[in-house]
Amino acid sequence: MMNGFHPEDISDEELDRQRDLYGPFTDVLRDLVDAGIRTEVGEAEIHGVQVELEAIVARLRERQIPGAYGVRYTSSRRSRAWGNSVVGVRNAIAPPLRVHWHPDATGEVWADFELGAAYEGPPGLVHGGICSLLLDQLLGESAGCAQRAGMTATLTLTYRAPTPLGPLRGEAWVDRHEDRKTWCRGHLIGPEGVTVEAEGLFIQPRTPRGSDTPAPPD
Amino acid sequence: MMNGFHPEDISDEELDRQRDLYGPFTDVLRDLVDAGIRTEVGEAEIHGVQVELEAIVARLRERQIPGAYGVRYTSSRRSRAWGNSVVGVRNAIAPPLRVHWHPDATGEVWADFELGAAYEGPPGLVHGGICSLLLDQLLGESAGCAQRAGMTATLTLTYRAPTPLGPLRGEAWVDRHEDRKTWCRGHLIGPEGVTVEAEGLFIQPRTPRGSDTPAPPD
Repeated sequence: MMNGFHPEDISDEELDRQRDLYGPFTDVLRDLVDAGIRTEVGEAEIHGVQVELEAIVARLRERQIPGAYGVRYTSSRRSRAWGNSVVGVRNAIAPPLRVHWHPDATGEVWADFELGAAYEGPPGLVHGGICSLLLDQLLGESAGCAQRAGMTATLTLTYRAPTPLGPLRGEAWVDRHEDRKTWCRGHLIGPEGVTVEAEGLFIQPRTPRGSDTPAPPD
Repeated sequence: MMNGFHPEDISDEELDRQRDLYGPFTDVLRDLVDAGIRTEVGEAEIHGVQVELEAIVARLRERQIPGAYGVRYTSSRRSRAWGNSVVGVRNAIAPPLRVHWHPDATGEVWADFELGAAYEGPPGLVHGGICSLLLDQLLGESAGCAQRAGMTATLTLTYRAPTPLGPLRGEAWVDRHEDRKTWCRGHLIGPEGVTVEAEGLFIQPRTPRGSDTPAPPD
């Protein structure tokens, strides 16, 4: 089992330097994932590229962390979940969503993004499970924005209409809360309106975690 | 908006040839996504690899399909959803799950798989939304296995325990059905037991689609 927790004590300047380095690098990996699905070049070229990529993987693995990325903090407690499957700056699986938090910690969050070939389920449509993946993250960040960050306890998705690949918007907000429980709601919006609605229950840990900061992750 | 439907009329032999070609190629892309998250090589090396990858993307894009992959069929109606975010042989975002269907079309399906750094949410744990992504696919295939394939209408997840990164198993089955509606249930199992439970309602289209074949996708 991998342990993803790697505390660090880097400065805000170092964090910015790392984002400038890894952001564009991971964007190329995303581009490569898309090209890998859609390419129709010949068999010899696929074989050739495969050999080159194997060599590149070996070079990148010459020095690497033993497990997953985890959530890390700077000395000023800015957090970064760069391995996260939805928002991770260094994770090519993540679109990544850049989630905006309402500055008054109301719990309102939103993100505009575009999904390509890698997020397909039915032909030309976003995979229903990808919709639930993105909404789980958005609802969780909504609880975080309201300073009530916790783990997902339940999540219910209602699919109103097919979600087309292309430009989309996600929104979430806090519906109500009671003790350590926070109920959040949200939806995805396509060019023709709401496609998927979500409601989730998030439960705060008894001992507040470091990630319960009122600022969005970097 | 992209249209992902690309009908083809290839033979079963050509399908097998393509799987042998693209399967190992996409596995290297998955390895690269993982290495991209975990690498700690120096800044110059990251920049160097980035330039090389940009050139490789350009080569792969020299000939490519205009949109997403879609679901394609051979002349004998074997289907392949190779762009699918969960099971897609050519999609590096997909682990990919290899879902087994009960041969008697009972609706029972299962998959054993391993999730690494790219599927992380909380430190060392599978992202709750990744659990819902995988369960949406498993429950949908359960309906398909029972010859009742349809689109997800609702999906409810109950998170019983954290899901650790590492080896996991997913199972799904048909709970009940009525007219075009099929209710499926399923769960993820980690080394210490069930972590997430799911129930979903799937609705069959009025006009049966080509994908309503009683065989698992290739």
